[in-house]
Amino acid sequence: MKFARLGPAGHEQPVVVREDAVYSLAGLVADINADFWETDGPARVRAALEAGTLPVVEDADRLRIGSPIARPGAIVCIGMNYAAHAAESGAEPPPVPVIFFKAPNTMAGPNDPVTIPKGSTKTDWEVELGIVIGKRASYLDSPADSLEHVAGFVVANDLSERAFQLDLSGGQWSKGKIAPGFSPLGPWLVTPDEVEHQKLGLRSFVNGEPRQDSTTADQLFDVAHVIHHLSQFMALDPGDLVLTGTPEGVALSGRFPYLVPGDVVEIEIDGLGRQRQEYLAYDAGR
Amino acid sequence: MKFARLGPAGHEQPVVVREDAVYSLAGLVADINADFWETDGPARVRAALEAGTLPVVEDADRLRIGSPIARPGAIVCIGMNYAAHAAESGAEPPPVPVIFFKAPNTMAGPNDPVTIPKGSTKTDWEVELGIVIGKRASYLDSPADSLEHVAGFVVANDLSERAFQLDLSGGQWSKGKIAPGFSPLGPWLVTPDEVEHQKLGLRSFVNGEPRQDSTTADQLFDVAHVIHHLSQFMALDPGDLVLTGTPEGVALSGRFPYLVPGDVVEIEIDGLGRQRQEYLAYDAGR
Repeated sequence: MKFARLGPAGHEQPVVVREDAVYSLAGLVADINADFWETDGPARVRAALEAGTLPVVEDADRLRIGSPIARPGAIVCIGMNYAAHAAESGAEPPPVPVIFFKAPNTMAGPNDPVTIPKGSTKTDWEVELGIVIGKRASYLDSPADSLEHVAGFVVANDLSERAFQLDLSGGQWSKGKIAPGFSPLGPWLVTPDEVEHQKLGLRSFVNGEPRQDSTTADQLFDVAHVIHHLSQFMALDPGDLVLTGTPEGVALSGRFPYLVPGDVVEIEIDGLGRQRQEYLAYDAGR
Repeated sequence: MKFARLGPAGHEQPVVVREDAVYSLAGLVADINADFWETDGPARVRAALEAGTLPVVEDADRLRIGSPIARPGAIVCIGMNYAAHAAESGAEPPPVPVIFFKAPNTMAGPNDPVTIPKGSTKTDWEVELGIVIGKRASYLDSPADSLEHVAGFVVANDLSERAFQLDLSGGQWSKGKIAPGFSPLGPWLVTPDEVEHQKLGLRSFVNGEPRQDSTTADQLFDVAHVIHHLSQFMALDPGDLVLTGTPEGVALSGRFPYLVPGDVVEIEIDGLGRQRQEYLAYDAGR
């Protein structure tokens, strides 16, 4: 199934997206959040679809698309998880997953305009496969146990300000990862049965020109490995989001210019949908 | 005023702690959370105290003390914010605040037992002044604007596993900061009018022996500077928690052993209260 959240920021309604129509979940569940996963939301939605009790959302394609999940308890990121991206960043592939965090309030809709942060000269794109946790994961015995803790997958743009991240940070990356609007998510959360998550093409484009073009098959640490590894150091809770790293083709490589006002970034992952963001100057409209 | 949350984990009731008694806020507010700060909770509590409408919590000192705040949207930490601690860690004092994050689900009550993580050999204590945000702070003009965004102050133990943080992390510190129970908070949230927050002694003890003994006057970047600086890189939301770094006297220095099962850590900050945690083996009772 494909879940989404439609409507004005902060007032989205949860929906399920089917080929024939978009159905509202507003009468069935409060949100696509921890409680939804803890109470077997997908099974309740499937039953309601079969019973024909969900109302169709008319004019769904005229509504803003929000993040497909409510604000997570944590956004955990894996750094340098594609060998070619580590190389373009001037680093060796790491021997174990490298962890950093984004602030959950950076979450945005997939097509919301992004304000380039005040003082930024190095705002950069990163297409990433995002994992949404469905069931608490703590000290898993084996990577083989990981997938039962996954609720679904999302497209994420792990936006990064490289001067903030690398030059002004004392070496801790999060400072360049947490500007408002720096985590566009969606358009959909897609349940694991609908995608082969280690065989997904993922691409980015700036003003229509290709930038990143890779596949999740090239991840150094795959989804099962990442969840198992994280669970040795923290408890992952339902609704938490894990971003699995970006492939080569970002501006940090020196091969492409950083983003400037007026640029348009599009990113996509096979089966998970496509995002499109216009970039605005910090002082636009202030 | 001093706010606290008393009762079983996940079912705490908010209270206000006065010299004469502890009064329940359960009929007045839902929790000590973002909504409380956004709706001027302290003024409503003060009015109710004056009107004499708040019920006394009988036997308050027999109830478990929870974290004095509901789970924050983010726990933002400042690293190396005392020169002597930077030195004992083998680092130079940083020229700007260094930021990393803890997962919000690490929050615990001030006296809850702490389980030493599975595989840990280097679990370490860190007494820290915690700032709770009361009003959204984004792109503040000056450090002089910071304090109006502060709801209050708390004692925090920023527990750290040094092998996870430094040896297994690829250099990103969060991996050693996010084990379950690794952020004991409280006992109280104290409003800014009750403390001189840059003149507070802060101390830690292991099995009754002194470890850290410093003052917030020695912070490299004071509270006003930290909030202003953070606001240039992220939006701080009501209910968010900022930990302002730890002074010298931790096990990482090599002067003291790391924690082992059976150890008792006590930490305290003048005017903000005292914590006491017993440390348990990972497999205790499993």
